[in-house]
Amino acid sequence: MNGNRFGRLFQVTTFGESHGEAMGCTVSGCPAGLELSEEDIQADLDRRKPGQSMITTSRGEPDDVSIKSGIQDGYTTGTPIGMVIQNKDARSEKYEPFITAPRPSHGDFTYSAKFGTRNWGGGGRSSARETVNWVAAGAIAKQLLAHAGIELKAHVNQIDDIAAPEVSFEQLNEHSEANDVRCAHPETAERMQARIEEYQQEGDSIGGSIYFEARGAPPGLGAPRFDSLSARLGQAMMSVPATTAFEFGLGREAREYTGSERNDDWEFDSEGNPTPVENDHGGIQGGISSGEPIYGEVTLHAPTSIPKSQQTADWETGELKDEQVIGRHDPVLPPRGVPVVEAMLALTLVDFMLLSGRINPDRLDDRPGEYDTDYHPSNPRNE
Amino acid sequence: MNGNRFGRLFQVTTFGESHGEAMGCTVSGCPAGLELSEEDIQADLDRRKPGQSMITTSRGEPDDVSIKSGIQDGYTTGTPIGMVIQNKDARSEKYEPFITAPRPSHGDFTYSAKFGTRNWGGGGRSSARETVNWVAAGAIAKQLLAHAGIELKAHVNQIDDIAAPEVSFEQLNEHSEANDVRCAHPETAERMQARIEEYQQEGDSIGGSIYFEARGAPPGLGAPRFDSLSARLGQAMMSVPATTAFEFGLGREAREYTGSERNDDWEFDSEGNPTPVENDHGGIQGGISSGEPIYGEVTLHAPTSIPKSQQTADWETGELKDEQVIGRHDPVLPPRGVPVVEAMLALTLVDFMLLSGRINPDRLDDRPGEYDTDYHPSNPRNE
Amino acid sequence: MNGNRFGRLFQVTTFGESHGEAMGCTVSGCPAGLELSEEDIQADLDRRKPGQSMITTSRGEPDDVSIKSGIQDGYTTGTPIGMVIQNKDARSEKYEPFITAPRPSHGDFTYSAKFGTRNWGGGGRSSARETVNWVAAGAIAKQLLAHAGIELKAHVNQIDDIAAPEVSFEQLNEHSEANDVRCAHPETAERMQARIEEYQQEGDSIGGSIYFEARGAPPGLGAPRFDSLSARLGQAMMSVPATTAFEFGLGREAREYTGSERNDDWEFDSEGNPTPVENDHGGIQGGISSGEPIYGEVTLHAPTSIPKSQQTADWETGELKDEQVIGRHDPVLPPRGVPVVEAMLALTLVDFMLLSGRINPDRLDDRPGEYDTDYHPSNPRNE
Amino acid sequence: MNGNRFGRLFQVTTFGESHGEAMGCTVSGCPAGLELSEEDIQADLDRRKPGQSMITTSRGEPDDVSIKSGIQDGYTTGTPIGMVIQNKDARSEKYEPFITAPRPSHGDFTYSAKFGTRNWGGGGRSSARETVNWVAAGAIAKQLLAHAGIELKAHVNQIDDIAAPEVSFEQLNEHSEANDVRCAHPETAERMQARIEEYQQEGDSIGGSIYFEARGAPPGLGAPRFDSLSARLGQAMMSVPATTAFEFGLGREAREYTGSERNDDWEFDSEGNPTPVENDHGGIQGGISSGEPIYGEVTLHAPTSIPKSQQTADWETGELKDEQVIGRHDPVLPPRGVPVVEAMLALTLVDFMLLSGRINPDRLDDRPGEYDTDYHPSNPRNE
Repeated sequence: MNGNRFGRLFQVTTFGESHGEAMGCTVSGCPAGLELSEEDIQADLDRRKPGQSMITTSRGEPDDVSIKSGIQDGYTTGTPIGMVIQNKDARSEKYEPFITAPRPSHGDFTYSAKFGTRNWGGGGRSSARETVNWVAAGAIAKQLLAHAGIELKAHVNQIDDIAAPEVSFEQLNEHSEANDVRCAHPETAERMQARIEEYQQEGDSIGGSIYFEARGAPPGLGAPRFDSLSARLGQAMMSVPATTAFEFGLGREAREYTGSERNDDWEFDSEGNPTPVENDHGGIQGGISSGEPIYGEVTLHAPTSIPKSQQTADWETGELKDEQVIGRHDPVLPPRGVPVVEAMLALTLVDFMLLSGRINPDRLDDRPGEYDTDYHPSNPRNE
Repeated sequence: MNGNRFGRLFQVTTFGESHGEAMGCTVSGCPAGLELSEEDIQADLDRRKPGQSMITTSRGEPDDVSIKSGIQDGYTTGTPIGMVIQNKDARSEKYEPFITAPRPSHGDFTYSAKFGTRNWGGGGRSSARETVNWVAAGAIAKQLLAHAGIELKAHVNQIDDIAAPEVSFEQLNEHSEANDVRCAHPETAERMQARIEEYQQEGDSIGGSIYFEARGAPPGLGAPRFDSLSARLGQAMMSVPATTAFEFGLGREAREYTGSERNDDWEFDSEGNPTPVENDHGGIQGGISSGEPIYGEVTLHAPTSIPKSQQTADWETGELKDEQVIGRHDPVLPPRGVPVVEAMLALTLVDFMLLSGRINPDRLDDRPGEYDTDYHPSNPRNE
Repeated sequence: MNGNRFGRLFQVTTFGESHGEAMGCTVSGCPAGLELSEEDIQADLDRRKPGQSMITTSRGEPDDVSIKSGIQDGYTTGTPIGMVIQNKDARSEKYEPFITAPRPSHGDFTYSAKFGTRNWGGGGRSSARETVNWVAAGAIAKQLLAHAGIELKAHVNQIDDIAAPEVSFEQLNEHSEANDVRCAHPETAERMQARIEEYQQEGDSIGGSIYFEARGAPPGLGAPRFDSLSARLGQAMMSVPATTAFEFGLGREAREYTGSERNDDWEFDSEGNPTPVENDHGGIQGGISSGEPIYGEVTLHAPTSIPKSQQTADWETGELKDEQVIGRHDPVLPPRGVPVVEAMLALTLVDFMLLSGRINPDRLDDRPGEYDTDYHPSNPRNE
Repeated sequence: MNGNRFGRLFQVTTFGESHGEAMGCTVSGCPAGLELSEEDIQADLDRRKPGQSMITTSRGEPDDVSIKSGIQDGYTTGTPIGMVIQNKDARSEKYEPFITAPRPSHGDFTYSAKFGTRNWGGGGRSSARETVNWVAAGAIAKQLLAHAGIELKAHVNQIDDIAAPEVSFEQLNEHSEANDVRCAHPETAERMQARIEEYQQEGDSIGGSIYFEARGAPPGLGAPRFDSLSARLGQAMMSVPATTAFEFGLGREAREYTGSERNDDWEFDSEGNPTPVENDHGGIQGGISSGEPIYGEVTLHAPTSIPKSQQTADWETGELKDEQVIGRHDPVLPPRGVPVVEAMLALTLVDFMLLSGRINPDRLDDRPGEYDTDYHPSNPRNE
């Protein structure tokens, strides 16, 4: 409703502004019995954090997560997991020129129009810094999915007009973290890197896109119509800051395919069950998962904060002025967006796994250990 | 949760299967005092209904809506509006071959995987017939938006590789209903029509896309992050059956723009207020409306039901078989999809208007008439 | 949000006014594979319907339910169950004096204050007639609970100052439907009946209360804090028209018990599991079910529509006037409230059974029959 | 869904266990422009905190709140308000005997039955310590209500069989904080205090109840049926730990009133508007506020943690054992429950104020100051 909650059964609630004291995130609905540590979460935070390479902002944030609740002896307890991440390197003075003069294509004007005010330091709540919370929550979702046999991965598949060729899931896993661009096709990654640096030197920025894929999702996830897997993925991915397009399967290209070309015939798999011959449908049919890999793509526009001078209109002085957005900014978003897209994919899938009862909403059944009180005969699970 | 509800304050709940007795829809959260009749709703239903032209299915459904509640003396009362639309021309026998042998790229397999069964006649709940409910609800939303000064319109902007040139909002309104394709560029419409008929004669079908635009939305609609206007539009549009891509503003093309190209500078409007020089941002900045026209695009794949023979796998007999989906089907979806996309746009916008208090959730203030009991001094609205 | 929805996973959405064309109800989230017929629902509707005895209103409504969707070959399909119940005996003219002069302690004034208007015939949306929808939905919930081994029952345990002694669950089942008052203690029922008739003859009405009990609920239902079983029962029961108090366990009497008196010690049951020695806690500890019977009580005030003359204030004419609420009304609410309380109890419990995964949200596992497509090896349920 | 969220537009999300590192709470949906400081919140936290008198637990928690986000220059910004309260005086060793042997009538057994584990230190998530979050959130709600002219107050109106006489709202405000019991009738407070100490010395505890009242709520708050003001208050109050009964207006006594006795006639107020002669309806008619004071009562059972020896059953050893719950505990709950009940009342009312548009969900209109960007002509609020 107010924009800081995601999920139906696996619920994420966030707080925090770019230059505020801390970012924070509460995950509720994670079943008891999942092994979880701060390190598990930190690994993904480190993939998103600023300052990790020459093509990211130089803001220095360690993004150390601190879990405040919901874990006992290394396992989740089923109650809310509160997490806090301190902001340590905020420098708001660079944003003062923009308090009453909105930066072009940022949320400055629109937040002020909505709230009559806004936290202006570093973009406040509208800053992509807030996705640190998503990645923290998404790391928990991934852990839970892994437990259920679902894996997922994303990589940068296009920067400007440089498109990577199709890669296998194995290539995705092997190569996407091996370069600063996070493109799983090493040769393309190099060309992308060069292009990004070119724009960066010009004081400009550039757009790109992210391909994502999930393997191991059982058939039957998603609900008819408004809560279809595609609709909820649509919401999830269109939440990602700077996203202007979401596609799955053949996506936007589907408009140029005939039915007979795009339709996937059925055959039997080795165990005698129907299975689609191809996967032009991106793992989703009628809004519900088919058991095939779920894949799609997200386009992120170029960062709006650029050193190049742009025109703004100061509503207090009534003057037009040319301003540079100095701060410390990314010249391109997809490389740091990869873990964010993965997080939103994980959060969406884990919710459907819980909603379909495929992951037990209260507790994982195979939780070992001393507090295993799985004892009551009138509990149907124990029969 | 279960897929048959849309909206937070303006809530739509639907029921019905393609070959069931009736379709139905309950709208709650429509404020009191809106003038509303069955005719207002029927006008949009007629744009969506089958059998309206040579390039739609020949199923004969009048789609007459019957309002059961929520209206008194021609005005809404603020309580739920129940609507029922009878199904009159269901012929299920054509679907019998597919009870245990899923039609390619339909929801047959996935619904069965989820529910262990499905209503197989005409595709049951997975059929696009169900969008009749959405259009009924959307017609109410449009009426409410019109009352608040917001207009919206969609048209078919591409079929196969035939793309319409950009059209103005005025052209959209003037031409989109003047041809069977619902393309606002008459000359392109003719070429599209010819192309569709070509595929239709081959026993095949073809994909396409729909452009939508809304005018008059005030700045400040949408909420930060997961409930941004773009995220909720994403969910809404990705719900539309056969949709594989959603974009707004520059959409997927944004990946090839630099920041300095895409960013929209600020100037002052005639009244001295900041206004963007251009609208590459599609009316949404930081997830919140800027006051500029909101526009975007939805891609719909080709109808999966085609007369051409396709292979399926019968899970009961264990046999592969070639089947034609005979029934009565559309050769292309966007022409009938136009009112559906408009409905989802309207439902999304009206919800944000209510959530921001710009439309009063309880009642329209200017409701005339004998039961106007706007009398109580302690009601702050009356002061 | 707007008051016509109940439930999180098992969702009920209603429409209809007392004197409108029809009442209606959509149940979504009922798993596939539940055997269900109109007769199953009708049985409970008949217990609630008007005109069933001398101590109910004489309005003549057959309350025949018509299921429009969601059932195939006698089993639920997992998709929304749409139900419609025609209104047949509305006589609105008796309500004309009250259009601008609110009936005492009714919702007339408050609905008008909220919406600036109201459907005045028969009380419109505020009428308890609307609970016909709840009972229809509740009948489905009961069927699902029975499938999971949970039974529930209510009866009238007090009218005016005539209180029934405690009865066993067996007595509840045996006697509560055997008399018009629906009190499971036959002798008390007679005294209650006489007292009700006494007030009825005086042109007055009287209050009372309903005791409810559920057996077979496993331990572990409910969630911490705001979604505790007690909190959600509180919402459910306080929704019942005319309810002014809700209690469970020792309820209001608990204020006069010490900890050592009220606390229930633990012992072992025959299978060696901890079980409480007594059940002063009403089956709920820390907001979560203990496995013991869940019981509580709901108080309903006297019907506000009485033939006795009462004073109202006409806001149009500015005159005070004495009016009788003529219509056709109940002299007491609990006898017809019994199936309503049962419905709300069932809806609350079934929701928690689904939320905890104890009932599979997609489908019942033991559904027999020809469309049983429980075949896919990658579906974890099938392993 | 998972129990740690309350509210529809004014949303509270909490985390934290009794003996965990910290408690925390995120409030989203608070409009921009509300003056707010940590001191405003601290005042209510101090009323709830342990160790405040001889009749509360001696656990030493300063309960200092730290606001992490959502405030700028002393005013809310409309974005989430993150708050953290450190736990400082947890001593878990006293709880070790109960890890596998549930304390009588606590949530120990039921949490373990649900989650298969539980955080056992100090009762973990089931501890009433968690209400520190509610009070923090409630303090913000109260501030917002005060801004809209709504005041509310609670006091202890019964302990054991000692009932306070009715008190006026003025007395409530004047006396309820003047004694340790928080009873607004000083003489009764003394008797209550003596009684509590008596039980305390016996190593026992006692129940009691809390009366609450809100003034200034406009008519028209609440929605029909399941979201009525009474239903949502029911949920809110039944969430309060140890609550076993909720009533409003005549409450449970209503069962012994006739319609003619309980019904409130209408007259005109000094300005010529209908107003009820009395307020037996507790400010709620048909589930919607009437404009009269909203009042009711909540019963809290005796604390279950008592020094007296009680029997428990150890599911690991299979032995029955007698245990004392040593820890540091309250001998009675209502004195510290008063701010908790006020918080839940405030959270419920503020939500309805937002839902009805009576408080603007985006921002308070009279917010002064330098960032007031209330400038855009197409924003209808500015016309």
